[in-house]
Amino acid sequence: MEYPVHDTQIAPLGRLEVLSRTEAAKLLDSGHGSLHELYRNCSLAVLNTGNELDDAKELLERYSDFDIRIIQRPRGIKLDISNAPATAFVDGRLIVGIQEHLFSVLRDVIYMHEEIRGNPRFDLDESEGITDAVFHILRNASVLRPRTDPKIVVCWGGHSINRQEYEYTKHVGYQLGLRGLDICTGCGPGAMKGPMKGAAIGHAKQRIGKGRYIGFTEPGIIAGESPNPIVNELVILPDVEKRLEAFIRFGHGFVVFPGGAGTAEEIFYVLGVLLNPKNADLPFPLIFTGPKSAEDYFMQIDQFIGEVLGVEAQRRYKIIIDDPVLVAQEIQAGIKTVRDYRKQNRDAYYFDSQLKIEHEMQRPFHPTHDNMRKLKLHLDQPKHTLIANLRRAFSGIVAGNIKDAGIRAIEKHGKFEIYGDEMVMQKMDALLSAFVEQHRMKLTGRYEPCYRIMVEQDE
Amino acid sequence: MEYPVHDTQIAPLGRLEVLSRTEAAKLLDSGHGSLHELYRNCSLAVLNTGNELDDAKELLERYSDFDIRIIQRPRGIKLDISNAPATAFVDGRLIVGIQEHLFSVLRDVIYMHEEIRGNPRFDLDESEGITDAVFHILRNASVLRPRTDPKIVVCWGGHSINRQEYEYTKHVGYQLGLRGLDICTGCGPGAMKGPMKGAAIGHAKQRIGKGRYIGFTEPGIIAGESPNPIVNELVILPDVEKRLEAFIRFGHGFVVFPGGAGTAEEIFYVLGVLLNPKNADLPFPLIFTGPKSAEDYFMQIDQFIGEVLGVEAQRRYKIIIDDPVLVAQEIQAGIKTVRDYRKQNRDAYYFDSQLKIEHEMQRPFHPTHDNMRKLKLHLDQPKHTLIANLRRAFSGIVAGNIKDAGIRAIEKHGKFEIYGDEMVMQKMDALLSAFVEQHRMKLTGRYEPCYRIMVEQDE
Amino acid sequence: MEYPVHDTQIAPLGRLEVLSRTEAAKLLDSGHGSLHELYRNCSLAVLNTGNELDDAKELLERYSDFDIRIIQRPRGIKLDISNAPATAFVDGRLIVGIQEHLFSVLRDVIYMHEEIRGNPRFDLDESEGITDAVFHILRNASVLRPRTDPKIVVCWGGHSINRQEYEYTKHVGYQLGLRGLDICTGCGPGAMKGPMKGAAIGHAKQRIGKGRYIGFTEPGIIAGESPNPIVNELVILPDVEKRLEAFIRFGHGFVVFPGGAGTAEEIFYVLGVLLNPKNADLPFPLIFTGPKSAEDYFMQIDQFIGEVLGVEAQRRYKIIIDDPVLVAQEIQAGIKTVRDYRKQNRDAYYFDSQLKIEHEMQRPFHPTHDNMRKLKLHLDQPKHTLIANLRRAFSGIVAGNIKDAGIRAIEKHGKFEIYGDEMVMQKMDALLSAFVEQHRMKLTGRYEPCYRIMVEQDE
Amino acid sequence: MEYPVHDTQIAPLGRLEVLSRTEAAKLLDSGHGSLHELYRNCSLAVLNTGNELDDAKELLERYSDFDIRIIQRPRGIKLDISNAPATAFVDGRLIVGIQEHLFSVLRDVIYMHEEIRGNPRFDLDESEGITDAVFHILRNASVLRPRTDPKIVVCWGGHSINRQEYEYTKHVGYQLGLRGLDICTGCGPGAMKGPMKGAAIGHAKQRIGKGRYIGFTEPGIIAGESPNPIVNELVILPDVEKRLEAFIRFGHGFVVFPGGAGTAEEIFYVLGVLLNPKNADLPFPLIFTGPKSAEDYFMQIDQFIGEVLGVEAQRRYKIIIDDPVLVAQEIQAGIKTVRDYRKQNRDAYYFDSQLKIEHEMQRPFHPTHDNMRKLKLHLDQPKHTLIANLRRAFSGIVAGNIKDAGIRAIEKHGKFEIYGDEMVMQKMDALLSAFVEQHRMKLTGRYEPCYRIMVEQDE
Repeated sequence: MEYPVHDTQIAPLGRLEVLSRTEAAKLLDSGHGSLHELYRNCSLAVLNTGNELDDAKELLERYSDFDIRIIQRPRGIKLDISNAPATAFVDGRLIVGIQEHLFSVLRDVIYMHEEIRGNPRFDLDESEGITDAVFHILRNASVLRPRTDPKIVVCWGGHSINRQEYEYTKHVGYQLGLRGLDICTGCGPGAMKGPMKGAAIGHAKQRIGKGRYIGFTEPGIIAGESPNPIVNELVILPDVEKRLEAFIRFGHGFVVFPGGAGTAEEIFYVLGVLLNPKNADLPFPLIFTGPKSAEDYFMQIDQFIGEVLGVEAQRRYKIIIDDPVLVAQEIQAGIKTVRDYRKQNRDAYYFDSQLKIEHEMQRPFHPTHDNMRKLKLHLDQPKHTLIANLRRAFSGIVAGNIKDAGIRAIEKHGKFEIYGDEMVMQKMDALLSAFVEQHRMKLTGRYEPCYRIMVEQDE
Repeated sequence: MEYPVHDTQIAPLGRLEVLSRTEAAKLLDSGHGSLHELYRNCSLAVLNTGNELDDAKELLERYSDFDIRIIQRPRGIKLDISNAPATAFVDGRLIVGIQEHLFSVLRDVIYMHEEIRGNPRFDLDESEGITDAVFHILRNASVLRPRTDPKIVVCWGGHSINRQEYEYTKHVGYQLGLRGLDICTGCGPGAMKGPMKGAAIGHAKQRIGKGRYIGFTEPGIIAGESPNPIVNELVILPDVEKRLEAFIRFGHGFVVFPGGAGTAEEIFYVLGVLLNPKNADLPFPLIFTGPKSAEDYFMQIDQFIGEVLGVEAQRRYKIIIDDPVLVAQEIQAGIKTVRDYRKQNRDAYYFDSQLKIEHEMQRPFHPTHDNMRKLKLHLDQPKHTLIANLRRAFSGIVAGNIKDAGIRAIEKHGKFEIYGDEMVMQKMDALLSAFVEQHRMKLTGRYEPCYRIMVEQDE
Repeated sequence: MEYPVHDTQIAPLGRLEVLSRTEAAKLLDSGHGSLHELYRNCSLAVLNTGNELDDAKELLERYSDFDIRIIQRPRGIKLDISNAPATAFVDGRLIVGIQEHLFSVLRDVIYMHEEIRGNPRFDLDESEGITDAVFHILRNASVLRPRTDPKIVVCWGGHSINRQEYEYTKHVGYQLGLRGLDICTGCGPGAMKGPMKGAAIGHAKQRIGKGRYIGFTEPGIIAGESPNPIVNELVILPDVEKRLEAFIRFGHGFVVFPGGAGTAEEIFYVLGVLLNPKNADLPFPLIFTGPKSAEDYFMQIDQFIGEVLGVEAQRRYKIIIDDPVLVAQEIQAGIKTVRDYRKQNRDAYYFDSQLKIEHEMQRPFHPTHDNMRKLKLHLDQPKHTLIANLRRAFSGIVAGNIKDAGIRAIEKHGKFEIYGDEMVMQKMDALLSAFVEQHRMKLTGRYEPCYRIMVEQDE
Repeated sequence: MEYPVHDTQIAPLGRLEVLSRTEAAKLLDSGHGSLHELYRNCSLAVLNTGNELDDAKELLERYSDFDIRIIQRPRGIKLDISNAPATAFVDGRLIVGIQEHLFSVLRDVIYMHEEIRGNPRFDLDESEGITDAVFHILRNASVLRPRTDPKIVVCWGGHSINRQEYEYTKHVGYQLGLRGLDICTGCGPGAMKGPMKGAAIGHAKQRIGKGRYIGFTEPGIIAGESPNPIVNELVILPDVEKRLEAFIRFGHGFVVFPGGAGTAEEIFYVLGVLLNPKNADLPFPLIFTGPKSAEDYFMQIDQFIGEVLGVEAQRRYKIIIDDPVLVAQEIQAGIKTVRDYRKQNRDAYYFDSQLKIEHEMQRPFHPTHDNMRKLKLHLDQPKHTLIANLRRAFSGIVAGNIKDAGIRAIEKHGKFEIYGDEMVMQKMDALLSAFVEQHRMKLTGRYEPCYRIMVEQDE
């Protein structure tokens, strides 16, 4: 099959980019593992938006001739793009939102590489150093806005959801938008796009010209979940863990729509943080919601959480079925308590530095076969360790499903093996099977699991 | 049935309104037939948006306690609103877009009354005087924008269309929006709303922050077709005929979606103008379009036009089925020819004063039973007279369907009787029957025709 | 002597102008007494800024070949200018502020002619009709701003003042600007320009990007006192009396710097209004101020007021010598009382409609030799009649000094004769002689009085 | 003598500042040599604007109780200021321009300390590393603007000049402003303020709302030359040498007004750079200008340059006496050649990285008594070494005149001794004596030289 492509040259719009000679040189210096390769691949992902493709490996292969190069001009830099997916263009002109995203990628790739890595200020082996790096990346991307009341609603949920669920995410987004709230998601399709489209209409009716549609992604996931062009603030965090940390320190209210392994990863991450006794008193509005048809789905997840993590975990969220207005009202009320709490404690609205995240949750997890095999998912370990490992297990499955490195690893070494005790493994198997049945793992085609659930034998 | 209501006080937003003492006094001076009554009824219509109700009489009865009054404050005027439909509010606060519309109504009602009527400058008995009045109303509403290239696409079509057709209007709007085009419609629901919603998403992706969603309405129709709050420029013209003139002098490209009697009125109006030999050379991009399922609908209309008005009329439009991208591309190409033509002739882009409209088409038609009965729809009269009468016939049916005065007249005197020769009456009967069958006449319930088609006996 | 000239074509900037065909046609239709002549002469005055010339007749003669014509273009109108004073250009390009003024002139000339005159809404033979016309002219010029706290300081004073006085007006303007106050003047040179320049620096330091420098002029005076280009809101009122009414209904605080006959006219006008018992309770901050060297000047005026109008009149102003900070603080405090008063009475901040102005003060006075001769300046008449006549006397002298019609009349018929009783005439003679000695009557050259003070014989 | 002070708390305006916890902590951690001390002293300098004081030591002693502390609030940081000079306030409220400057200081002090120093990316022992640091500081301060045509005019000249020269700098600034050019200076009083004030009026007349008044300073000089609040972009460079480099890489045209030792330093710096053969072909518009009375002054400097550096150096500048229009036209023409050159070479308009600056000129020079004594100002050395040393000699004199450390060193150790051969020393003595006589060294009082010119004995 042939994939039509286009060439173009674009200048920055809106945000102005000025590169030093050193920076430009580094971005041009190609080769495997180079900054250029990272920049090129993320750019390709951005350009692939709108295509029904959640397979990073396939994407890179389809557009192997694609390239993007920086050219210096008297009035500033330009990007010289060749063999880009034609779907990013309208009558031969690149869609402006995508153009903007390419410059966001440029900004973040340089910042990560030039200002974070190798800078002794950021000790990435320490919890504080990691949080400081997340803070600086967000600040450099201009998403931390002082003098603004809390109004960021993080929406999580699957990239592969059915029409009814998708319409539901739009309705919730619409009600949030009518209430002047902004949306932050993982910025791919499905539940990451619906709330933004809904909010855009809500904002239009309320004449909110500066509605924010913020997307947080990372180099591994971006190719599997191309940002949709409605996103008007795109940030590329260095890895999964910093992206998750960014979400929970940046958002003020959290809505979880139905989804697959990625959504489960997000749920376990946030519950892992909230179960930390140091966070016991922090207000953190968290709502699971979907249309009537999703009721069973959430019951199943709720049950899993109840059985594996206990009622204490269940207390940190509400489940609301088929009621977008109520979701919006609850979120708004929740954000009010967040505001009051921070006001009283003189904490910043734009970045929650009170939230305690264990270093264990922050450390990057590389889902190799070996690392996946070593996860111990059994009940007789501290709850926070169990939950951290659960998070990693789902993270690995996401990688095996849609990330380039993950897909290649599975092709080469076969399925991931995930070990745990019988009780946990049974629940997990049931949950994952349900995701598969409901087509939540991949956008198209028959899904072939990338994992095997293994009950650990008592020794 | 009880209809929940809210009270509120609102200040102008965005556009600033300053009233003189005389103007404020006139608006407060109530009574039947007064400026206040006109202002109150239009305001109620604006506040009723989102309700599935296309019956002006019913609306006025439902909210008979509604009132809106101007109060003067040191920093400017406020509107004091009581017993307004609760649907206009989100958690007790009026939607800002609706708030804006209330001030547009205020602006236009005052301007019509104070600056147009009674001002010797505007001779409303002359064609030129009418056109000058339309120009001044649009200018006063700040919709005439110099230093802007032509990009207004007028979209006509029914307020009562099915889901599939509605989605189609959104897709066309999206493709127009992606190409940077703005939308102007009659600003009610259905085909008047879909293109705006689609264009809003297209504009968002292209980072067009100042996309225009312009609505032209008039006091008779507004209550039957409440403006949707996405409309960010609302103009209330004095009557049907000036509204139609505003559309064709203001727009640069024209798209007709499926619709009922109102859409037929628009089609016959524009064809009547275009058939004028003086307009023969003016470029005027006009496209009829709908999804696959609407193919028969347009074939039927095309046939009617062909048989009654001839191939000359058919030459002024294209029919495109199920191809939003092509519609957008054709419109864009058509607008290019409009631009070139006006550039060459040094005509303004923002108001087409070249277009010749016969006074016959401009004169307000009041659809009383008597006037309806007097329409002669037979073939042995000049074509422009026949087409003017056809336009009036459909206009009367719209009034009988959804306008307050029309509905009351039908209730009191029974159905309108429309006379014509057998050939025309048969075609018209068939067309109207199809509209009825396809539920294009009214939003809800079983439709009872407000007219009777009568074949005139040869004498 | 040769005066260098330039040609140019300009498009509107900032404010967008859209003309109807009728309006454009009227502006092009030249001939003596035509709208075109009025427009041309006001435009020439605007273009003459910066030249040391306060003689309207001389100006019209110098640039007799000057013309300005409207041309219609697809993107809007342009102005085609020929033989304009070269001083309005920088390296061949028209200064943008002047360009803006030309469009203000266009706007006001059309509005006066098309919307005010001949419109039965405005009964210019009635006090209320005149006030309504002033209101509409200001509203049409967009200078009435709702949702804004009172902060307009009207500065009056001579166009011909010495360096020290000029510097002083700048210092006062600077202190006003530092306090966020806006400036409104007659918009010519001298005391009309200094406060604006000072305020501009004060605003810059306070980062007030939208500082307002408002100029009110009228067709008679504009050629003698060309607006300076710092003025960013220029309004041309129809005549002297409406200009004076505009000042006092629009301003919130009033500062009078030294000046000549025009300044005296302003002082007598405002005192005439304030002495009206109906205005007794209205707060109206009015300060006479100048540098140390101007102390005698103000003492003399104060004495004249005391002797002719009494202590009651003296109570309505304060004299502050050589203290810009105190002037600014007093004005600010005064504006605070205006704000409180209007808030309590729910009067608009942007236009004082409470202030009662006798029709006698509003009626246009044409300073013909006959009308001047008929003024009766004696003490045994009602004070308000005396003061109205005093105002007219000074108004006539201004006309004789710098206005085209006035200068021509003097050339033809000799000096104006002003009659009154001995006491008033002596005081007036002394005052006028002082103005002459201090070079306050004309910018350059030896001043030859245009009047003769005549003591009326008792009969 | 008592100096009145005020306390206040201020929030950021315009530019939004977000600090990380680490950054805030470092700024609060006081002590001698700490970041806090640097921040406090620069802030005090900013607050001292408008006072006639060019003595950093005196300033620090006068306001020894002054302090500024950061406080974190939910909506962002605030600054808590105590015992600040009352002159920075208007009726108790801090002038907004000064408020902005305090946040510029905050931004640059943190950036220098946190991002430049200690970051292995910037090798400050290498020429390229220094240039890269200057680039990053300017970029971080948002002064590098892509998509903008060249229009920055750097104006150099003394802080202590007479009234006539000051008025002349305003006239030149006015003519530059009328031509749409922006101004960049050392941002103190005198010749650093006049051009900005003049340009502000020119910009106002041309309706340039975004005129740029850029100030480059450094922690040593800022207290001696407080930035004037018209400066709307203030950058604090780390030291004299980086400030000078910033000027010449950032500006597009250069105007030198009369001045003292600092101006001489600037002249020798720029000539030193331009004499580098690698820069021979670079266009670099450089004009020395002043009123008629300054003619001798420039003749003397020109002669000194001719005799010490030769005709080659004289060729790089033009001298224009008493002609502001010509200065502006020449600068505009010069900037055009810069634009053409960079366009052809695809060099950035916003930062000249072609200009070669020897490391010798970039290395910070600390004017201790020992370092001053070691300068060898004799003719038998390479010209670029001689010029570098001349620059250092003048730099040291500036420090001895107005910088805190310099003044203290002179108090403690007596005058600097400057050695050189007879010819150079005679010329230099003459030049410096002239500066002293013309009151160019210090604002007020009798000037006591901080240096002794010593003729080196042949050995």
